[in-house]
Amino acid sequence: MSQAIDLNADLGEGFGVYRLTDDEALVEVVTSASVACGFHAGDPATMQRVCQLAARRGVAIGAQVSYHDRVGFGRRALEIDAAELTADVLYQLGALQGFAQAAGARVAYVKPHGALYTRAAFDVVQAEAVVAAVTAFDPHLAVLGLPGSVLLACAGAAGLPTVGEAFPDRAYTAAGRLADRRTPGALVVDPAEVAARAVRMVTWARVRTPDGEEVVLEPRPRSLCVHGDTPGAVGIARAVRAALREAGVHLAAFA
Amino acid sequence: MSQAIDLNADLGEGFGVYRLTDDEALVEVVTSASVACGFHAGDPATMQRVCQLAARRGVAIGAQVSYHDRVGFGRRALEIDAAELTADVLYQLGALQGFAQAAGARVAYVKPHGALYTRAAFDVVQAEAVVAAVTAFDPHLAVLGLPGSVLLACAGAAGLPTVGEAFPDRAYTAAGRLADRRTPGALVVDPAEVAARAVRMVTWARVRTPDGEEVVLEPRPRSLCVHGDTPGAVGIARAVRAALREAGVHLAAFA
Amino acid sequence: MSQAIDLNADLGEGFGVYRLTDDEALVEVVTSASVACGFHAGDPATMQRVCQLAARRGVAIGAQVSYHDRVGFGRRALEIDAAELTADVLYQLGALQGFAQAAGARVAYVKPHGALYTRAAFDVVQAEAVVAAVTAFDPHLAVLGLPGSVLLACAGAAGLPTVGEAFPDRAYTAAGRLADRRTPGALVVDPAEVAARAVRMVTWARVRTPDGEEVVLEPRPRSLCVHGDTPGAVGIARAVRAALREAGVHLAAFA
Amino acid sequence: MSQAIDLNADLGEGFGVYRLTDDEALVEVVTSASVACGFHAGDPATMQRVCQLAARRGVAIGAQVSYHDRVGFGRRALEIDAAELTADVLYQLGALQGFAQAAGARVAYVKPHGALYTRAAFDVVQAEAVVAAVTAFDPHLAVLGLPGSVLLACAGAAGLPTVGEAFPDRAYTAAGRLADRRTPGALVVDPAEVAARAVRMVTWARVRTPDGEEVVLEPRPRSLCVHGDTPGAVGIARAVRAALREAGVHLAAFA
Repeated sequence: MSQAIDLNADLGEGFGVYRLTDDEALVEVVTSASVACGFHAGDPATMQRVCQLAARRGVAIGAQVSYHDRVGFGRRALEIDAAELTADVLYQLGALQGFAQAAGARVAYVKPHGALYTRAAFDVVQAEAVVAAVTAFDPHLAVLGLPGSVLLACAGAAGLPTVGEAFPDRAYTAAGRLADRRTPGALVVDPAEVAARAVRMVTWARVRTPDGEEVVLEPRPRSLCVHGDTPGAVGIARAVRAALREAGVHLAAFA
Repeated sequence: MSQAIDLNADLGEGFGVYRLTDDEALVEVVTSASVACGFHAGDPATMQRVCQLAARRGVAIGAQVSYHDRVGFGRRALEIDAAELTADVLYQLGALQGFAQAAGARVAYVKPHGALYTRAAFDVVQAEAVVAAVTAFDPHLAVLGLPGSVLLACAGAAGLPTVGEAFPDRAYTAAGRLADRRTPGALVVDPAEVAARAVRMVTWARVRTPDGEEVVLEPRPRSLCVHGDTPGAVGIARAVRAALREAGVHLAAFA
Repeated sequence: MSQAIDLNADLGEGFGVYRLTDDEALVEVVTSASVACGFHAGDPATMQRVCQLAARRGVAIGAQVSYHDRVGFGRRALEIDAAELTADVLYQLGALQGFAQAAGARVAYVKPHGALYTRAAFDVVQAEAVVAAVTAFDPHLAVLGLPGSVLLACAGAAGLPTVGEAFPDRAYTAAGRLADRRTPGALVVDPAEVAARAVRMVTWARVRTPDGEEVVLEPRPRSLCVHGDTPGAVGIARAVRAALREAGVHLAAFA
Repeated sequence: MSQAIDLNADLGEGFGVYRLTDDEALVEVVTSASVACGFHAGDPATMQRVCQLAARRGVAIGAQVSYHDRVGFGRRALEIDAAELTADVLYQLGALQGFAQAAGARVAYVKPHGALYTRAAFDVVQAEAVVAAVTAFDPHLAVLGLPGSVLLACAGAAGLPTVGEAFPDRAYTAAGRLADRRTPGALVVDPAEVAARAVRMVTWARVRTPDGEEVVLEPRPRSLCVHGDTPGAVGIARAVRAALREAGVHLAAFA
């Protein structure tokens, strides 16, 4: 039986003279590019460049929406009204769509970033605010997020396609949740190990906890998240891609 | 013979808690609303509110694009590369389009603001950069600007619809150009006088200089620009609208 | 026995072309001006103008420090690390001090704004972060805040002078706390009533609840906060000043 | 006869998660650190860290002031009113001074950055605006800039100490001016060659043009500018320092 999976990464997280993500390398690895939209990172010239790269490679373009907090890189929770959050997300969706359509493509999905990703995973008010923006913008847009999150539940209830992702370089608990980043072994850094985990996640929907316990990922992840903000991370992403291809997994964007 | 004219004004030029334009009043007066897109003024919540107002009233929505200079309100010239300017304009077009489509409308035209309006009227590099953004975004978008400007020439050459505007509250020179704001009488403030000038501009394509000389506006203006950033300005805009209706002029958006 | 009190208000809360506070009127009324430092409001030109106004009138200059959130006017809570908050406060203190010393004055006190005011009133981590900035900048700077707040406790423990303020235009509960803004009668809007409350707060350290209960303010407030972001507010501030003078109260800055 | 020279570099040009300059390495090499103040680069946490580094090493702290243009890194000329520019410079001076004094040091000099450096070298209005800010802030502050520039002339006329810098990694014309960056050989990249040029600049006040012509630098430079925004640049800066020490030159801040 042939498996298919999407490989997503954050792209365009530079700003002005600053570079963070290796966009040229990543666009060769992933099938979905979550592009920063100027609120936590990304400036117009960077967004345009990344959308052109993605369009040229046939990589799906997603809006990596976030709180308006450039100095904090969108990693700090903000007590924002639902209506303001909806407007902020709409602004980012539209801005990215401008570059996507200028590059002959379109925004295909949405993935919240940083503190908004975390918050919308459990806070129904903020999750609904994000979903309201997506629905108003384009009711066919997919939402990419954490399996079991409030965000995906709200998005699904609103009729939006939802896609859950797994993290081959992150440890999982026995409950099938991401282990706290600060716990020992929470981050898997060996490319071969991450790649092997990726293959198992896709083919068996399984992951092993740091204690060796086997956990079934339910529902089966439809996308794997890889990182690209360090040279090492790109190497890991490439290893994941190669191992999946080797294992006969078909790589394809979900949207 | 029945005349038709568009009436445009800048809307949504507030920011956060700040208000500048009386958007609720203006949207009842104009046929085209040039909405600030967040670079010189306008925040997401304001943009959303104004797009909803305009869509509800059937007022055409235009992108009032500008340099990225909020503290200077886009009034300070910036030596920006053409490619960066194109990206900046694309970002603003897209962001506004997000709100327009969420309100069931669309961005129908583009009008540069402030220092970019002035610069693109004579600087072919910046004019072409604006046109490149508009063309890439939507080759059917109209460009609203100064008659005889380099911007309208470039836009026309690129196949974009172009619309020249006249200013009933501004004095014109014998050469048919806007008089310098700092010359005596450059700003006409009496509502009845502005209204009478508006009617003559539309019905006869004529305006009188401060010296009493009669000037023919060529080409005939297809839009009149009114202002709304002061209570007095809204009164003038209303007087213009009433006088035009009284004179049998049909008010309609050009796009 | 002669009483003395400070009268403080927020000044310089405009930005660029936007005006919010009537700085010219307020500087004639207050003895302490809490000047916005560019993070929630205030741009360099505004800060300079307000510092010059205050210096000319002998009004004490305070730093109205806040979260970095211009579009939200500093009213939205931000989960910020203590070290980052300390750096943010130091930046604002220094920036204002530049204008103060250029005007021949100095920053005399600190008052957090909006969401930071609220947060630092109960959150010891953020309160300590503010205090750390003040202490590092100038250990003689006073901290103006809510009586009984964690912020004033931390500031006092660090050896900083602390000043508690009362709000003559806000209702108090029987426990001597500010009533929730959303409860009926929470905002007192009649100038004469606000003025009478101000006099009682100063001379008797007492305030009456909406139910008519008499509450003693402990400790006795050393500053009254008045507002100036609406024309009506300035009128109230003037009424408060006039009534205090009439009652023989000496108006003087605490710092 | 023993020579003395200052070695200056730009530090703290990161922003939030972004790093550009290798501040930890540079602070070991230079005697003067021109610290970005938040307008083209630099955020409060970065400024605080760099001021602490500099204070600990006894390196002089300078304010690297610039136009308010983060996305353009201060490299784009801005048509700004003199009064606004003065306020912008004052804001930056004060903000940096906050961190300097918190670190037990002080701002010792000012050096404009990027487009402001270029502009103030020939535009007397903007040069005077910068000087007005410095004078109002602290009339003993030194101004570091291009020898023969309008900025240094204005600063000198206002009674401020002025310091001219030379660039060992830049080609000079026969007229003793910096060669255009785009001419072949305009940038010297070999560490040994840059170091040798630095020694000749200091000991003989001479530099050789790409054509081999010998040029006398007049007045004798009191500071050499080195760069640190790339790993290679830091290596060059170290080579310059080592060669100067080897040649018996005394390295000391001018302020």
